[in-house]
Amino acid sequence: MIKAGIIGATGYAGNEIVRLLLGHKDVEIVWYGSRSYIDEKYADVYQNFFRLVDAECMDDNMEELADEADVIFTATPQGLCASLINEEILSKAKVIDLSADFRIKDVKKYEKWYGIEHKAPQFLDEAVYGLCEINREDIKKARLVANPGCYPTCSTLSIYPMIKEGLIDPSTIIIDAKSGASGAGRGAKVANLFCEVNENVKAYGVASHRHTPEIEDQLSYACGQEVLINFTPHLIPMNRGILITAYASLKKDVSYEEVKAVYDQYYEKETFVRVLDKDVCPQTKSVEGSNYVDVNFKIDPRTHRVIMMGAMDNLVKGAAGQAVQNMNLMFGRKESEGLLQIPMCP
Amino acid sequence: MIKAGIIGATGYAGNEIVRLLLGHKDVEIVWYGSRSYIDEKYADVYQNFFRLVDAECMDDNMEELADEADVIFTATPQGLCASLINEEILSKAKVIDLSADFRIKDVKKYEKWYGIEHKAPQFLDEAVYGLCEINREDIKKARLVANPGCYPTCSTLSIYPMIKEGLIDPSTIIIDAKSGASGAGRGAKVANLFCEVNENVKAYGVASHRHTPEIEDQLSYACGQEVLINFTPHLIPMNRGILITAYASLKKDVSYEEVKAVYDQYYEKETFVRVLDKDVCPQTKSVEGSNYVDVNFKIDPRTHRVIMMGAMDNLVKGAAGQAVQNMNLMFGRKESEGLLQIPMCP
Amino acid sequence: MIKAGIIGATGYAGNEIVRLLLGHKDVEIVWYGSRSYIDEKYADVYQNFFRLVDAECMDDNMEELADEADVIFTATPQGLCASLINEEILSKAKVIDLSADFRIKDVKKYEKWYGIEHKAPQFLDEAVYGLCEINREDIKKARLVANPGCYPTCSTLSIYPMIKEGLIDPSTIIIDAKSGASGAGRGAKVANLFCEVNENVKAYGVASHRHTPEIEDQLSYACGQEVLINFTPHLIPMNRGILITAYASLKKDVSYEEVKAVYDQYYEKETFVRVLDKDVCPQTKSVEGSNYVDVNFKIDPRTHRVIMMGAMDNLVKGAAGQAVQNMNLMFGRKESEGLLQIPMCP
Amino acid sequence: MIKAGIIGATGYAGNEIVRLLLGHKDVEIVWYGSRSYIDEKYADVYQNFFRLVDAECMDDNMEELADEADVIFTATPQGLCASLINEEILSKAKVIDLSADFRIKDVKKYEKWYGIEHKAPQFLDEAVYGLCEINREDIKKARLVANPGCYPTCSTLSIYPMIKEGLIDPSTIIIDAKSGASGAGRGAKVANLFCEVNENVKAYGVASHRHTPEIEDQLSYACGQEVLINFTPHLIPMNRGILITAYASLKKDVSYEEVKAVYDQYYEKETFVRVLDKDVCPQTKSVEGSNYVDVNFKIDPRTHRVIMMGAMDNLVKGAAGQAVQNMNLMFGRKESEGLLQIPMCP
Repeated sequence: MIKAGIIGATGYAGNEIVRLLLGHKDVEIVWYGSRSYIDEKYADVYQNFFRLVDAECMDDNMEELADEADVIFTATPQGLCASLINEEILSKAKVIDLSADFRIKDVKKYEKWYGIEHKAPQFLDEAVYGLCEINREDIKKARLVANPGCYPTCSTLSIYPMIKEGLIDPSTIIIDAKSGASGAGRGAKVANLFCEVNENVKAYGVASHRHTPEIEDQLSYACGQEVLINFTPHLIPMNRGILITAYASLKKDVSYEEVKAVYDQYYEKETFVRVLDKDVCPQTKSVEGSNYVDVNFKIDPRTHRVIMMGAMDNLVKGAAGQAVQNMNLMFGRKESEGLLQIPMCP
Repeated sequence: MIKAGIIGATGYAGNEIVRLLLGHKDVEIVWYGSRSYIDEKYADVYQNFFRLVDAECMDDNMEELADEADVIFTATPQGLCASLINEEILSKAKVIDLSADFRIKDVKKYEKWYGIEHKAPQFLDEAVYGLCEINREDIKKARLVANPGCYPTCSTLSIYPMIKEGLIDPSTIIIDAKSGASGAGRGAKVANLFCEVNENVKAYGVASHRHTPEIEDQLSYACGQEVLINFTPHLIPMNRGILITAYASLKKDVSYEEVKAVYDQYYEKETFVRVLDKDVCPQTKSVEGSNYVDVNFKIDPRTHRVIMMGAMDNLVKGAAGQAVQNMNLMFGRKESEGLLQIPMCP
Repeated sequence: MIKAGIIGATGYAGNEIVRLLLGHKDVEIVWYGSRSYIDEKYADVYQNFFRLVDAECMDDNMEELADEADVIFTATPQGLCASLINEEILSKAKVIDLSADFRIKDVKKYEKWYGIEHKAPQFLDEAVYGLCEINREDIKKARLVANPGCYPTCSTLSIYPMIKEGLIDPSTIIIDAKSGASGAGRGAKVANLFCEVNENVKAYGVASHRHTPEIEDQLSYACGQEVLINFTPHLIPMNRGILITAYASLKKDVSYEEVKAVYDQYYEKETFVRVLDKDVCPQTKSVEGSNYVDVNFKIDPRTHRVIMMGAMDNLVKGAAGQAVQNMNLMFGRKESEGLLQIPMCP
Repeated sequence: MIKAGIIGATGYAGNEIVRLLLGHKDVEIVWYGSRSYIDEKYADVYQNFFRLVDAECMDDNMEELADEADVIFTATPQGLCASLINEEILSKAKVIDLSADFRIKDVKKYEKWYGIEHKAPQFLDEAVYGLCEINREDIKKARLVANPGCYPTCSTLSIYPMIKEGLIDPSTIIIDAKSGASGAGRGAKVANLFCEVNENVKAYGVASHRHTPEIEDQLSYACGQEVLINFTPHLIPMNRGILITAYASLKKDVSYEEVKAVYDQYYEKETFVRVLDKDVCPQTKSVEGSNYVDVNFKIDPRTHRVIMMGAMDNLVKGAAGQAVQNMNLMFGRKESEGLLQIPMCP
């Protein structure tokens, strides 16, 4: 039995970790950390867990938690994990950080895009970027995993085969992303009120969103050269789901069959990446509540570009599901253990 | 391994039966029946099942199906099950009918409210009304189960302890219900288009909805006298969920604690009925995707009425989940097998 | 030209007053009051007014405002208007208060339900309850109008002809109401976040909502005896709209035609109350953005009850529209001036 | 008084023409054409018009209509207007066609993208593309106006100043568009059901959408060379609104101020195009129900691209509003007559 502690258990990602771990036959949750709700019953904060979780919320004492847990999930704002972590903690428990603290290897880049000082740069080298389909073997050996951001997960998996195989020109990549409102978290802000989000669509963070350097890093590793992209996220009036629509110029003429073969080569053995049939567009509804990422592509011979699309549930594969997938890898469990929820429709 | 066949597998309820049975460790689906999509791949109709279901849609030949399956689910329009069923089929396979054909014992009442002739009245006596928490023992022995309607399930479970214990005046019951759009099915009708349902709320079937006599029957059985109610359903702009708000006059002064004790007496051992804490209102979000029904009540000393509330997922406990729960009972499995999905939030 | 000032201009109701007054040919807005956004451009708070409103937000100095304005709208939390108002202000400007401060004549009742002390009970007698269709003549002469609450407006107009004509038993009235999220205001609360409201429905304020005594007062005036009701509001995942479904026992057998004649008698000359055709249910979509209230009824001969229904836009007829309608009456303008927006569909 | 007839009055665009014309002081609607609802009361099809429209639906006899009307709006599927129109009709009445029949000058291109034969190519030369801000003078003299498509209106207006002034490389333009569900029309299709659209987002018509050549034509006229673009529309779970996010490489280094000056040069005198303040992103909510288009841009110095954004109400500026704007121009009325509805929020 893996003993798990969660810091930030009352955010939407934390709540989703709880949902998934309760259904994991080999995990026991020993710590529901939430500074905002200390001593309140967790099931009073999330009524869906009534009679399913009896625990009360704890603080974020990571040192004490490391004594009780085998794995610690930090689903907290940027900077918190880096400010708490230390060698002693890592010697006792594995850490899966859902914030951005250990995703970007270059401290200066992190500090520039996030506007905060990095408090634990000494662990950046050791931290493994937890995109399971790409870094599986390193994750298995990791003590500290940087769980990827939601947009970077969906973007990287959708584009990876094309850029890795040198089929697209890295300097032409544009990613237009659409996300449900749970991506904005559970903070009480006017901009996230029902009446502000409903019956509305808008871009935000144009040319400045913090996930940009994370995506660029991953694409750069894939093609071996520095990549700069345009990334534009949009807020969509729905709870869950991310869709990315990516554009790039093809380096040479390729047929549908050739590109399909490339995607299959990377993903046909992957449980959680589904390359859809020809001309079927990924949609968020078809992956809702599940750890799947649906990807597909369309070649436009008129413009010599390829349109790459990916859909996933931002709270599952984009956060909690991938965190559990990483945990399974780190603890030698079956990678899909506790993650085979079937997408819910409608 | 229970072999299951589904007639009407491409409606929303049928699709939900598939989702649940795929996660049931002891069931194999052998027949995806759908007249509208014969020979098409099931996963092409419901993209969420891509790579998870490989089968093609079959017709609705119930006789042939009875040779192959141990249990047949009919998730079809009123009248179809009654027109297909016969003794030979029932001698080979158990049948769980999600339509209204066998819910109402009085043929005349059925024919009046549904406006069609009943084609198999000879099975009405035998059919068991599959409200598991109330008719558990009879269901275990049944060959033919009439799976309850969505509104009747939620209404009956919310009111049952009060009427059974004689705490409310049966002649004063008013049920005001709210349902998500999946309850209207997947038929292509203008009234169910996104733009017609979104940003809108309205009542329908006022004083004439077909679930009225079904609820009245169940409440009448509970209190031993004929009950007539007002039942008004409303269409809510959401996919899933039913909320009922029921009103009745109290027969005598009772305290919160007394009424709470009554509800607990009926439900504290029930896996799927959760009596919420004092003053917590049931909400559909807290049961989404799960087989739970959340109920609660509020006494109004000013008017000497009690307000009884219940929330559930209309496609799970209101249709497919209850059907699987019935199947588990009929086949001697653990009642909750395959049904412990945790409500998804947000 | 009527000079208008708004205190609380950045709430949803205040914003709607601005929308309506900008389209009123005879009004100039001279004061956009908003404590939270003082000195910010109003159009920066509400982007829809970009290039249409150039003003900056002011404070809530009602005395100064009374020197500049002919009419003052207070769209503020309970208690503020009563704490600011005085004889001098009323001698200079007419006041239309959208809060509850002057709706309930009985101070004790107000203080009990609202939990705050009333700071200006001396004006309660003078204040006119601004339900235009019922108190038209008094409103014309008023200095201080208590603009009705959203639920009371829709409830009272839907029930009024029936109770006034003695067709229903006042002791049996139950009102089940459904409201869009804008009714909860623009405050940054977790409960009003998109992800909490979307795909969800729940009751709130069961047997305790503050609009209860206001509705009871109006119904009591209509029938000349004290009325106690059950009133249960529900939060619906939509921006705008209120639907009420009211139930009452009929005092005698009446036909559809008789009841229709009663409704027509009260409303056929009213611009803003539309009695729908037989069996057509009011729906919020059909009045969205407009000052109309759609009402209808259904007699249930089985239970000897009548179901009365009403739909309106909570921000228009339920708040800002009725306030402008009151202003028109108070200033001798055509009652419908600036209020003939056609409902927007879809 | 302009007498107006509408063919296709019961579609969403037709319904919106009715809403706008009823509020136009100088227009009388004399013909509500709708093949599907002949002889039914128009207000029975659209309940929002109860008591506001008394007429019954007529057929689509354009010749007869031309005798009664000064202007004919055709809000019908592709091909119908071209199949009905003739010289005699045009000699009697002006025609504003909301379908694509006269938008594309090259018959072959039209027939290729739309897959139907053009029945009236003889009028292609005469027809004026009714994008008012660009072709104003020609529209004033036109007998036949091709009302632009929704996506082309929003895309062209957002990009026009940049491409016209030679600031962007036309070969690099990518348009990623998001539309509410009303753009799909009122046809009863499973794909447009509430449960299919709600809580979902997907691309459609990837590299093949019919608005592509229309946008390309307009951009080509602007820059004087043939332009090929990528255009990807997405279906968003909301009723109204289109947002486009367009990407292009800058031909030279330009500052924010320089680009802002270019946009202002084109639009500061335009009533219906609002260039937002720096860093404010257009959002559909801020133009809902109105004829405004909100545009803005963001320069990304890292990639030397500009991101151009535009938001409008697809049923107003994207269809009915622009049609009325065209009518005003054609009949010498004030261009904004009947079109100054203020955007509704929330």
